[in-house]
Amino acid sequence: MDRGRLEAFSDGVFAVAITLLALNLAVAGPGHGSLAHQLADRWPAFLAYLVSFLTVGIIWVNHHALVSNITAVSRLLLFLNLLLLLFVVMVPFSTVTVAEYFTRGDFDAKVSVAVYGIVLEGMSLAFASMLEWSLGEGRTRAPVPPGRRWAARLRFTSGALVYLLVIGGAFLSAPAAFGLSGLVAVYYMFERTPVTPPAQPGGSRGADEPVR
Amino acid sequence: MDRGRLEAFSDGVFAVAITLLALNLAVAGPGHGSLAHQLADRWPAFLAYLVSFLTVGIIWVNHHALVSNITAVSRLLLFLNLLLLLFVVMVPFSTVTVAEYFTRGDFDAKVSVAVYGIVLEGMSLAFASMLEWSLGEGRTRAPVPPGRRWAARLRFTSGALVYLLVIGGAFLSAPAAFGLSGLVAVYYMFERTPVTPPAQPGGSRGADEPVR
Amino acid sequence: MDRGRLEAFSDGVFAVAITLLALNLAVAGPGHGSLAHQLADRWPAFLAYLVSFLTVGIIWVNHHALVSNITAVSRLLLFLNLLLLLFVVMVPFSTVTVAEYFTRGDFDAKVSVAVYGIVLEGMSLAFASMLEWSLGEGRTRAPVPPGRRWAARLRFTSGALVYLLVIGGAFLSAPAAFGLSGLVAVYYMFERTPVTPPAQPGGSRGADEPVR
Amino acid sequence: MDRGRLEAFSDGVFAVAITLLALNLAVAGPGHGSLAHQLADRWPAFLAYLVSFLTVGIIWVNHHALVSNITAVSRLLLFLNLLLLLFVVMVPFSTVTVAEYFTRGDFDAKVSVAVYGIVLEGMSLAFASMLEWSLGEGRTRAPVPPGRRWAARLRFTSGALVYLLVIGGAFLSAPAAFGLSGLVAVYYMFERTPVTPPAQPGGSRGADEPVR
Repeated sequence: MDRGRLEAFSDGVFAVAITLLALNLAVAGPGHGSLAHQLADRWPAFLAYLVSFLTVGIIWVNHHALVSNITAVSRLLLFLNLLLLLFVVMVPFSTVTVAEYFTRGDFDAKVSVAVYGIVLEGMSLAFASMLEWSLGEGRTRAPVPPGRRWAARLRFTSGALVYLLVIGGAFLSAPAAFGLSGLVAVYYMFERTPVTPPAQPGGSRGADEPVR
Repeated sequence: MDRGRLEAFSDGVFAVAITLLALNLAVAGPGHGSLAHQLADRWPAFLAYLVSFLTVGIIWVNHHALVSNITAVSRLLLFLNLLLLLFVVMVPFSTVTVAEYFTRGDFDAKVSVAVYGIVLEGMSLAFASMLEWSLGEGRTRAPVPPGRRWAARLRFTSGALVYLLVIGGAFLSAPAAFGLSGLVAVYYMFERTPVTPPAQPGGSRGADEPVR
Repeated sequence: MDRGRLEAFSDGVFAVAITLLALNLAVAGPGHGSLAHQLADRWPAFLAYLVSFLTVGIIWVNHHALVSNITAVSRLLLFLNLLLLLFVVMVPFSTVTVAEYFTRGDFDAKVSVAVYGIVLEGMSLAFASMLEWSLGEGRTRAPVPPGRRWAARLRFTSGALVYLLVIGGAFLSAPAAFGLSGLVAVYYMFERTPVTPPAQPGGSRGADEPVR
Repeated sequence: MDRGRLEAFSDGVFAVAITLLALNLAVAGPGHGSLAHQLADRWPAFLAYLVSFLTVGIIWVNHHALVSNITAVSRLLLFLNLLLLLFVVMVPFSTVTVAEYFTRGDFDAKVSVAVYGIVLEGMSLAFASMLEWSLGEGRTRAPVPPGRRWAARLRFTSGALVYLLVIGGAFLSAPAAFGLSGLVAVYYMFERTPVTPPAQPGGSRGADEPVR
């Protein structure tokens, strides 16, 4: 099996999930107070949309970098990829939930952020398992040299570790824990450890080098 | 007609259907009891999501393996594929229905599982008809040798037979019959009969060999 | 511009529209009568789903055959294609509407079938305009010979004419006019005039020949 | 990274967003007045659907022309593209909002058109930043000659400037400002400045020349 259809199917799921995120932004409509107030009251929905959009967008960027380097798709990889998508598909649900609850200051708020963290944790671990698979012998065009494997693992394990903090921290402060999940997205936007080594080993790398 | 666009269109439908499955996970929101209780009460929705996601995911894996081996797409195959998608597209509907009813212990529960089984039966039979088509002379790059055709047929017929049991068994015990449809998904995840023969006849096959 | 992305975008729209069709099948849920009765009462929704699914599926098949023959995509063709998609995207809306109204036997029923017919008429005319564009000099790899152009035109004009009958006939008998739109789908499933001439002029054509 | 997957993912998002636009056309159903009246009362929804469909469709056409000319995809471009999609995904939300409010003649109407303009402004600026990126050294197969860069910039800056007028004008006359956003769509449909120079510099250009 070539990579093409794995990418096409995954791109479809990423695209649908990311587009469904914004459906929750709609206000209740005329008769529920002024529009400006309705929109202002929905700031948690806009914030949650932004965090989830960036998080899924970054996973998509990394997914692309990882898969584009793979030589042959195995049945195991297909199921690891399905596991990743299982969590990606749950992001709209967990985003709606966290948006409705995280500012309420009660136990529900803590639960909503913990649920949000669990879905991102699952997504993170599923991606880490795909990375681990790709480190196996002969599975990538440009294998990650042993000396750089831990850097690659650390990169994704660190995300998974922070989401553990989000889940646990939710029961201390729901807003702070939710903010922490937003910081993960911002961190990965500027994180520059390449997922895969350069395809051309001799290539120079600048601030805006082509993605590998 | 080349396979590319058949795959692209089918991938799109699979991706949208699989993503819509999770929309039903959303809770009613504040004012309907504690969030933890609302989520716990929705365990049938989470279970149904899991079973349907795996079932559609496996059909996608098999669809890929089958179509990637086809040499030329005929009008008949296009319509068999449309028939498959007709049932794939109904999975979100039947998943919502079974999730809302299968634990109620009344006649509605039995009907909901039967409806769920009927949609999966249709999907299974449509896929079996695509497999049968592909066994015809000159339709695949690596034809299934006559001696292995019955193994391939048995593989898919067995799924269709179990779904018949799901439909009939729904009227004896709705939860047990629904559980049986979940077992089909688990079985196919570990099932290792290749849908199509190896593209390179001499290739060795290990536990994690490339999908054929 | 190559055809690839025109196809990818169109396939995405076709796939989403066809999957959204089935969302309307969901019943109201527990507390609205027995599930069996709810499902039985929704037969117009199931019928409308079937007719719309087949109609969009056939348009997709024909769209594929037409576009795969085109050599260069012009800006005009892009906008004709957008016009086609504008109506494809409206099919879920018109399907929900016709399903809710066409059996009511009042003036609303007539209006709902007329609306349904108008959307299909628009889709049909937009497709005919793409066909007409493709008949221009040097726009297809295998140009339709002048002697076969009228056959190709007739094929699509006939669909557009029948949808005119659906729109007009809606005000005589809504169910009959809706049934007529279903007959168009069945007719095109078995219609065998190729949209485009054979790519290999000498190729023989049998009952299950590759699509051209 | 090649362009292929950037295009596939973007096409998926464009396709889903454009299809979700039409979901808002559905009427409330039987028991809410005659169907003809319900449809007539929804003319703002139909008009908003038309404007948003054309606007997103044109952005898709331009996105295609721009990306197809790019030689290598950088991480920065991926994030600029995500920024564009962030606004594309918000179009269904802003379309529903403007459709429900812009004809009400109160302050809510002004707010709804301003929100609609802000989303389109964001989309326009994100696209302009992608264009600016593409003007950099060695980033496109057929670089825009310096003498034509301002024409290309003007083309997109003009759109962004008009959307500023839409946002500001909303507080003078909501319907007029909304109409202005529709005029932008009509203008770009007939606008003929190529986004990118001809791939074959010597090619002649007619009224229906291939898109570059």
